[in-house]
Amino acid sequence: MRNIIKPFALAISLLFTFIFGFAQRDINLDKLSKTYADERLPLFLELLSIPNDAFYPEDMEQNIRWCEQQFGQRGFATQRIATTHVPLLMAERKHPKAKKTVLIYLQLDGQPVDSTKWFQESPYTPVIKEKNHKGEWKEATWESADSLDDEMRIFARSASDAKGPVVMFLAALDAAAKNNITPNYNIKVIMDFEEELGSPRLPDAVTRNAELLKADMLIIFDGPRHISNQPTLTFGARGIATITLTTYGPVVPQHSGHFGNYAPNPALGLSKLLAGMKDDEGRVTIPGFYDGISIDPKTEKILRNVPDKENEIKKRLQIVSADKVGSYYQEAIQYPSLNIRGMQSGWIDEKVRTIIPGWARAELDVRLVLESDPERLIRLVKNHVASQGYYITDTEPTEQERLTHEKIATFTSEISYQSFRTDFDSEVGVWLTNALKNAFGEDPIRIRMSGGSIPISPFVTTLNIPAVTVPTVNRDNNQHSPNENLRIGNYREGVKTMLAILREKL
Amino acid sequence: MRNIIKPFALAISLLFTFIFGFAQRDINLDKLSKTYADERLPLFLELLSIPNDAFYPEDMEQNIRWCEQQFGQRGFATQRIATTHVPLLMAERKHPKAKKTVLIYLQLDGQPVDSTKWFQESPYTPVIKEKNHKGEWKEATWESADSLDDEMRIFARSASDAKGPVVMFLAALDAAAKNNITPNYNIKVIMDFEEELGSPRLPDAVTRNAELLKADMLIIFDGPRHISNQPTLTFGARGIATITLTTYGPVVPQHSGHFGNYAPNPALGLSKLLAGMKDDEGRVTIPGFYDGISIDPKTEKILRNVPDKENEIKKRLQIVSADKVGSYYQEAIQYPSLNIRGMQSGWIDEKVRTIIPGWARAELDVRLVLESDPERLIRLVKNHVASQGYYITDTEPTEQERLTHEKIATFTSEISYQSFRTDFDSEVGVWLTNALKNAFGEDPIRIRMSGGSIPISPFVTTLNIPAVTVPTVNRDNNQHSPNENLRIGNYREGVKTMLAILREKL
Repeated sequence: MRNIIKPFALAISLLFTFIFGFAQRDINLDKLSKTYADERLPLFLELLSIPNDAFYPEDMEQNIRWCEQQFGQRGFATQRIATTHVPLLMAERKHPKAKKTVLIYLQLDGQPVDSTKWFQESPYTPVIKEKNHKGEWKEATWESADSLDDEMRIFARSASDAKGPVVMFLAALDAAAKNNITPNYNIKVIMDFEEELGSPRLPDAVTRNAELLKADMLIIFDGPRHISNQPTLTFGARGIATITLTTYGPVVPQHSGHFGNYAPNPALGLSKLLAGMKDDEGRVTIPGFYDGISIDPKTEKILRNVPDKENEIKKRLQIVSADKVGSYYQEAIQYPSLNIRGMQSGWIDEKVRTIIPGWARAELDVRLVLESDPERLIRLVKNHVASQGYYITDTEPTEQERLTHEKIATFTSEISYQSFRTDFDSEVGVWLTNALKNAFGEDPIRIRMSGGSIPISPFVTTLNIPAVTVPTVNRDNNQHSPNENLRIGNYREGVKTMLAILREKL
Repeated sequence: MRNIIKPFALAISLLFTFIFGFAQRDINLDKLSKTYADERLPLFLELLSIPNDAFYPEDMEQNIRWCEQQFGQRGFATQRIATTHVPLLMAERKHPKAKKTVLIYLQLDGQPVDSTKWFQESPYTPVIKEKNHKGEWKEATWESADSLDDEMRIFARSASDAKGPVVMFLAALDAAAKNNITPNYNIKVIMDFEEELGSPRLPDAVTRNAELLKADMLIIFDGPRHISNQPTLTFGARGIATITLTTYGPVVPQHSGHFGNYAPNPALGLSKLLAGMKDDEGRVTIPGFYDGISIDPKTEKILRNVPDKENEIKKRLQIVSADKVGSYYQEAIQYPSLNIRGMQSGWIDEKVRTIIPGWARAELDVRLVLESDPERLIRLVKNHVASQGYYITDTEPTEQERLTHEKIATFTSEISYQSFRTDFDSEVGVWLTNALKNAFGEDPIRIRMSGGSIPISPFVTTLNIPAVTVPTVNRDNNQHSPNENLRIGNYREGVKTMLAILREKL
């Protein structure tokens, strides 16, 4: 009997869950998350009022103390992880019967601000705005948070990137605590106060504190959702390496009349090197650059599932056609990139001078994917330069070198972060997918790979913790720019998302 | 008898001249020119003390008045030629029995100064310096000008470029006047007070004053001698046109992570355009660019006669090999050039950002020669861009254009001055060659074409006056740079050169 009753009970239970559970739980979750999001709005405005340019450690100290206090009040044990500059903050809370530990990454610092470009008193004085009939953002009049329309927005530095997610998480913790929702996993929160500086001290801190940071999975509460603004999970991010390439002409700039047709022009040399790296459709032509990457049918299905509207992307960028590395956007992102991010030789515009410049420089970035060893990619680019007859050095050439080698290039490189990518059917992937599906009633958009890079690879590569990003903010948030903002609806749904994750059994 | 006596007398006379005349006249000329150069040194120092950045018309007014006074004292009738900014000054003196008129071009303004880079109180406080045993230039102690060593130098803005030649000419006029040397030609002097600004108002002034400026030949007292510092005549100068070429990527710079492999990179497009214009040896590969130029054996002999020491040039520029437009320096200069004088896209060094830039720009200069129609050369470059699939506009593209054309380039150009070139065996060429030969005892170095450009083409092309440049200053004079200087020996030989020209019958 036991063998029959058990499946039967399970089937009844599933049916019950299916008929009442989903709907009921979602309605509760909607209400709960809106209530707590609205109640914690003053806390959000308070956090946004603390300046957070990581260039000023004294300002970051205020942010750190605020986090220590807030997580302390919620039963977290906090401890600072010292670095040579601004520390990291760790907050930990254990739960009864928990077997797993989830590490959550939050970021508190923001990009520098140019107050003159903001349409409000200060980037650190948050203002709630609504669109008027002309489509302009104007300060809203409002009395209570719960009366705010989802389409209104909070304008302040870091509203979206990434103090918004910090307060969403605190509000979700409060909603859970007050409603007997206890995670069945332990939580560690690692707070980064130097993300916008590129987290230069994070890798070392992670290595030194491997035991302290140990966890079964990592969630990153950062970044904007898919452009459709539907619930999104991102399973990977390209890494980034950079290359600086300099070619040389005469030792000092020469009069282009006296020496035009005689002194070799370094800008021509550089142009030839760069032109030889890619074809007209933006595909790298250096043999082997894309080795190891192939999009199998299963992966293709995953990629095709993302509802990108490429015509809209192109219209926004004002381009007729895209590079042909992939045949569509999601495919393109699965490959490493080789991008000229900056280039200069001599001067242009009002500074122009009729010279043969002394040097020409290109700054390149290589976005990395899991299949490509970054050192190999860099070596391929370097070998390409060498194959064009260049003598390669990593410093400014000496007179002796200049008088010995016909073509000289200075080539330096740096691997900033590695790529990471977590399988959709990994434990963390399935768990988070279920959490969002249960909360929103449909599968989230699952993105295999984000084009951009986030400095969490030390966790993935050093500590071997699989990671998934849970983005919550609206994509048109002016991240890194003046008039950064967060849509109220995204703030509320962010609380809902995080509450769903706290509730979901692991 | 008359038919016999005449040739006989001529032969005797020539023999006499050959045996005694040369030596005697030269010794006189040496002494005379040194005497007057030294006597006019205070006048030179006075002129150098008047600031002459043409950006400041009130300073230029002082220079103009000084010239009016000096030429007036020497029997010249002066008159200003009004322009919309600083005027030109014309000084004219007629001589008995003169049949021809020689126009002399002088330049009074200097490049802007950065006083902090000068090793003296002010660029407008001339200092006479000598090299110490360490090879450093230190202020010389001296009592009288005639005791100054030829190797000493006068340091001041415009010492060489080109107030030096102005005073040399005044000193030569004085030496001639006091020693019964009367030119057998009339002299017109045209003084330019905006040369370093590119003489923007000269072409119009020349056209409007064609009758006033009418002359049989033009001498330009400007520029450095051949690097060997031997007496030099320059028979031509390349003209100059400029091109600005801009390519476009996304309408605003995009995050290179999100859009690397997707949004086309304008720096790559520009590199491909530039790389396609020239081969690895710096030769323009656009068909037809060098059409019309061929160096015949006679011209080659002329070019080969210039005693360039190319190994020294290369050592100075710290290059192993030169571009292969010509097989030697003088030949290279006979061809038009196509030079990348500036190039930029995004940012480099400490300003670098991980973006796909919105645009990339190259500034090109085309040095023109007589055989090449500048409009044709510009059209060839433009056609090359178009042949690479670019839609060409002369303004920033509109959204409509961006959404219609896959590749867009903004192409603008300007013809600054045309080239000029005078035959060695033209009247002015033979006359000046004789003058220098008679003064220095050997043929001057005759340069067919100077690589650089001088804004005198309006005289040559509009007024049809053949022109030759008579350079006098030392090449290592730091022209346009801090610590500009003139070697005392070149100052004295410059007076000698000009006195030789005043003496030489036309």
